Amino acid sequence: MALDADIAAQLTHNADGLFAAIAQERDTGTVLMMAWMDDEALDRTLTTRRATYWSRSRQEYWMKGDTSGHTQYVHDVRIDCDGDTVLLVVDQVGAACHTGKHSCFDTPSLVPGDGN
Amino acid sequence: MALDADIAAQLTHNADGLFAAIAQERDTGTVLMMAWMDDEALDRTLTTRRATYWSRSRQEYWMKGDTSGHTQYVHDVRIDCDGDTVLLVVDQVGAACHTGKHSCFDTPSLVPGDGN
Repeated sequence: MALDADIAAQLTHNADGLFAAIAQERDTGTVLMMAWMDDEALDRTLTTRRATYWSRSRQEYWMKGDTSGHTQYVHDVRIDCDGDTVLLVVDQVGAACHTGKHSCFDTPSLVPGDGN
Repeated sequence: MALDADIAAQLTHNADGLFAAIAQERDTGTVLMMAWMDDEALDRTLTTRRATYWSRSRQEYWMKGDTSGHTQYVHDVRIDCDGDTVLLVVDQVGAACHTGKHSCFDTPSLVPGDGN
């Protein structure tokens, strides 16, 4: 498999050949996480409709949920205006965050008096 | 000014001293854009409540809307679980994208039959 050439041409890769991927929950609009992809990860994501990232720490592909069961079923994918980020709209099974929280951004607010 | 030390300690910076910043619209949940910050940009954002990024191409701070008028009024800021991304919840004036579109992700879907 290889990523469609027209899609690959729209992407701007960093020095490691990667681009950012934001996962947003379809039903709620919640921003779940940010991770990284290369062309192969995006191809796998589009082909399988399950979000697949490149793990920078483990240096391997990582289909979300493979070990945790917390799969992300991909409904939509968009590349941003300058090509260095993709937005995945997903149906999230279970928790998106390795901490067990639904979103990786379910953390204390930095803005006093706002948020939680 | 300097970023609060407790906040700075929660951040994981890349080789350029930067971390990712996602802006999400408060009212609609729309993911508007992804850009970059350093500690000073986050401090300015928290202090002024106007989203301020670090422009990698221009190598300068960039208060969103300074030239375009398309200010992002910051309602909430969260750091993600591993500290390399912040999520800004904003009220967006006008278009977030330099193309004139409301969101930088207002682009064709890569998923046939879905999206638009």
